[in-house]
Amino acid sequence: MEKLIITVALTGNVPTKEMNPHVPITAEEIAQDVRRCADAGAVLFHVHARDANGRPTLDIERFKENVRRIKEVAPEVIIQLSTGARAGKDWEARANPVRLLPEMASFTTGSNNLPGIVYENSPQFIQFLAQVFKETGVKPEIEVFETGMINNALYLQKKGLIQGPLHFDFVLGAPGSMPGSVKNLLFLSESIPSGSTWSVAGIAKAEIPLATTAIVLGGHVRVGLEDNLTLPDGSPATNPKLVEKVVRIAREVGREIAGPDEARRILNLDPAQKDRILSRID
Amino acid sequence: MEKLIITVALTGNVPTKEMNPHVPITAEEIAQDVRRCADAGAVLFHVHARDANGRPTLDIERFKENVRRIKEVAPEVIIQLSTGARAGKDWEARANPVRLLPEMASFTTGSNNLPGIVYENSPQFIQFLAQVFKETGVKPEIEVFETGMINNALYLQKKGLIQGPLHFDFVLGAPGSMPGSVKNLLFLSESIPSGSTWSVAGIAKAEIPLATTAIVLGGHVRVGLEDNLTLPDGSPATNPKLVEKVVRIAREVGREIAGPDEARRILNLDPAQKDRILSRID
Amino acid sequence: MEKLIITVALTGNVPTKEMNPHVPITAEEIAQDVRRCADAGAVLFHVHARDANGRPTLDIERFKENVRRIKEVAPEVIIQLSTGARAGKDWEARANPVRLLPEMASFTTGSNNLPGIVYENSPQFIQFLAQVFKETGVKPEIEVFETGMINNALYLQKKGLIQGPLHFDFVLGAPGSMPGSVKNLLFLSESIPSGSTWSVAGIAKAEIPLATTAIVLGGHVRVGLEDNLTLPDGSPATNPKLVEKVVRIAREVGREIAGPDEARRILNLDPAQKDRILSRID
Amino acid sequence: MEKLIITVALTGNVPTKEMNPHVPITAEEIAQDVRRCADAGAVLFHVHARDANGRPTLDIERFKENVRRIKEVAPEVIIQLSTGARAGKDWEARANPVRLLPEMASFTTGSNNLPGIVYENSPQFIQFLAQVFKETGVKPEIEVFETGMINNALYLQKKGLIQGPLHFDFVLGAPGSMPGSVKNLLFLSESIPSGSTWSVAGIAKAEIPLATTAIVLGGHVRVGLEDNLTLPDGSPATNPKLVEKVVRIAREVGREIAGPDEARRILNLDPAQKDRILSRID
Ligand SMILES: [Mg+2]
Ligand SMILES: [Mg+2]
Ligand SMILES: [Zn+2]
Ligand SMILES: [Zn+2]
Ligand SMILES: [Zn+2]
Ligand SMILES: [Zn+2]
Repeated sequence: MEKLIITVALTGNVPTKEMNPHVPITAEEIAQDVRRCADAGAVLFHVHARDANGRPTLDIERFKENVRRIKEVAPEVIIQLSTGARAGKDWEARANPVRLLPEMASFTTGSNNLPGIVYENSPQFIQFLAQVFKETGVKPEIEVFETGMINNALYLQKKGLIQGPLHFDFVLGAPGSMPGSVKNLLFLSESIPSGSTWSVAGIAKAEIPLATTAIVLGGHVRVGLEDNLTLPDGSPATNPKLVEKVVRIAREVGREIAGPDEARRILNLDPAQKDRILSRID
Repeated sequence: MEKLIITVALTGNVPTKEMNPHVPITAEEIAQDVRRCADAGAVLFHVHARDANGRPTLDIERFKENVRRIKEVAPEVIIQLSTGARAGKDWEARANPVRLLPEMASFTTGSNNLPGIVYENSPQFIQFLAQVFKETGVKPEIEVFETGMINNALYLQKKGLIQGPLHFDFVLGAPGSMPGSVKNLLFLSESIPSGSTWSVAGIAKAEIPLATTAIVLGGHVRVGLEDNLTLPDGSPATNPKLVEKVVRIAREVGREIAGPDEARRILNLDPAQKDRILSRID
Repeated sequence: MEKLIITVALTGNVPTKEMNPHVPITAEEIAQDVRRCADAGAVLFHVHARDANGRPTLDIERFKENVRRIKEVAPEVIIQLSTGARAGKDWEARANPVRLLPEMASFTTGSNNLPGIVYENSPQFIQFLAQVFKETGVKPEIEVFETGMINNALYLQKKGLIQGPLHFDFVLGAPGSMPGSVKNLLFLSESIPSGSTWSVAGIAKAEIPLATTAIVLGGHVRVGLEDNLTLPDGSPATNPKLVEKVVRIAREVGREIAGPDEARRILNLDPAQKDRILSRID
Repeated sequence: MEKLIITVALTGNVPTKEMNPHVPITAEEIAQDVRRCADAGAVLFHVHARDANGRPTLDIERFKENVRRIKEVAPEVIIQLSTGARAGKDWEARANPVRLLPEMASFTTGSNNLPGIVYENSPQFIQFLAQVFKETGVKPEIEVFETGMINNALYLQKKGLIQGPLHFDFVLGAPGSMPGSVKNLLFLSESIPSGSTWSVAGIAKAEIPLATTAIVLGGHVRVGLEDNLTLPDGSPATNPKLVEKVVRIAREVGREIAGPDEARRILNLDPAQKDRILSRID
């Protein structure tokens, strides 16, 4: 079984300091959390941007600032920028993080309900964003909230817009879309082509149980305050505590933790492209 | 195993005479197809409306006209009106077919991609439409394009807006959402509460294979030109031919066909409310 | 999807004329049934032997006689001889049909309960029989009554005793072993290596429903009086009627029927070895 | 989710001190291990007997001695005696541990291959042993090595020989029977009637991964040197260390551990019958 890649979804668009005081909002807070999580065993960081008021933004300058600080304190980690829609629906604005040339960016290949909204990723938008991935050579992480999104990604691959082997992240347990059960996780992991890689992002109470299941199944794990604010014992989570918990569980079952270079190999990331983003953030 | 309920999705919003000359568009054509399909063994009819140009419409008068003619030629069948969005996004207009008090109406409890569009059914809209189902006492058929829609329906049930046992229709194989495989159908049929009823609507090439699987599994079947225009041998389908095929397959495997009253019992429809719609269509 | 291979298990060890007058017992009856079933679309024949009193026997002369008559009336079909244990537990006697060099022979790679008996195929016996398959170059059909038998076969393959791609036959619904549900069939079909071929033999009432499911899934089908004596309508089955039913269902869903040469290609049988058995039956 | 019941299979029939010096063989060693494991969180103990040479035996005096010592040092735990066949095939001898009136006894309801042997539990033997369970009122733990054994148990329940809700133990990963995958465990857990309870006993390397999966799924866990001699880090296991590991994993994911009385409630054991065995061991 491959070593375990631990991803941290640090901030997201929804969490606030009021919900959990440990949510990193500023570039400085985000970078410090990256450093602590990397020390604990995480290698891949899913990054959003917030404005001066802590609200989600697609302002590319904010993304650059986050990346700049992360690269200073943790130059070895893999940065994955978000292309999510809660921060804005403008197609170009959503694509801009990809154009910064991070090693990875998230890509939700379909639409579904989330609390209070339709998370809209129309067939036309998906096609557009896939074209940006193609032009930039950035590796997408396919965010799968529902089964059909797998097939939509395979369709883009078949059309030559994105390249396999694909990496999927199954986002399970968000109200409005696929629930966070072991059955659902196993089902999705069996619905992707062999040779693909996958991780799971369990939402809220589903986070640690599904992470645990992925450790056993040979998948990878995403944790973080974007997805879940509370530890299983009811106390407030922090990003490093979540990573530490995953590491302890992995050790108990004998699964080793991947370092940054091992993660790049597992994910088919070209190490030579590791720092392309530096040219874009000056 | 319960007898088999055969539903026909006669017309839909997308098919045209150019695609298949047998698509029933006018009230007269629709009613004639209902009669032929009922004679062949179908009992439940999923009905859309088209305007004078054959385009999809939410014009309630068109719905009334369709119902009027169907009731004349086939008073025994169960009518299920569509609340789909391709004919218009106005909430009230989409709810109006429910207010005609048909025995059933369709209800998609989530959002997903379909060819060229996001099929939008936001959390707020779902809540609104569930309220209309509650007020009218009309039985919803929960249209499930993705797994999360099951849970969304159960959430509405838990809130007291719709009543169990629920009837689900798994719509599989539409580009943009869950593919039409046996694995997916079995998975969904295992994801609903015991005591629920379900049918499958396989799209295009998936129609007959999934109908066949449902016959074996003890589920029910929806066929019709809304979902599929072509017979497995490549020739143009007609609604009655699709019903006849399902009946022949059911007979081969020893599954009996439900008549209208048996279907009402299986679906928990109150026979006393069978003709409430008559008061609304005059 | 590949064309459908139809296997007939003509006689078995248990059925008698008292149970169903159409069970072929003598070489003549067996050969006539092969001819009729081949005319109806079957290509692979699973053959047992009975003695002069109609009782199961491992007498190799009886096998030869059956083969001789089959080859006279249906030289094109694929013959698969049984190595089952109900007719005797002697290792050499069970292996002797393989040494006749039929194109295929059955091989149950584990033990399970059947009505009134433990169907014993010990690890040591399996190893022995695999060696005979290796020496003769006969292709085994792995008879799977329980999940572990798949793995046992893969273990023999790993040790170089049998050669992939393997062909599995899932025998489901026999009292004492795995029940004949769609879930179980799908599960087993997902538990074999990709590139394998498989068929299903549903026992008794499970025969036609599982055959139907296999048609849809892209697997192959075994029917016959060994497995089931009764048509879904309750009337006595005959081998040709069962084949005809499978053919009709396949046609309804658009699956084509494989002829002998197509079946050999799908099963990786070398056509040059088609008649090796003739040298052994004189 | 119910609290977690931890079972320990302390000794088994196969392990020796040469394989792992920590295997408890004598009554004294067994009792000491029970005490240590109970202190760590285990409540249910699966007990075999060995003779003076450390070889498996069905000698009822040896069982009594084991029970006597366990009851002295750990009167609160649930004792489950083995009826396995490796220690002898005599029907009466296999049934005798049940007649000691332990709270539970193991019951394998079918046959399968294990290393070097056919594990024979014929339909006739199963019927016989079920009758003993009925007469004694002892609760069986249904040991499931293959799917069909579930159905065999349900058949005995239907005939009134054993009483539901049943408790199943899925034994996965033993060479010759069902492999120890998450898929197999989930499949079996979905193949039992709702209202049943279940645990998993993963063999060898499968022990901790499947225990971990069961913790997440809401099942229960059996560990112990009978099933596995080695910790995931490659060092020799001990029974208490295996229990401690399970407890730590459960705590990480927030699953609480059941005490003896909670376990009795979950398993539907009558607390009034807790000490019936004392009358038989004097
Ligand atoms: Mg889904
Ligand atoms: Mg099995
Ligand atoms: Zn995000
Ligand atoms: Zn419709
Ligand atoms: Zn046979
Ligand atoms: Zn044991």
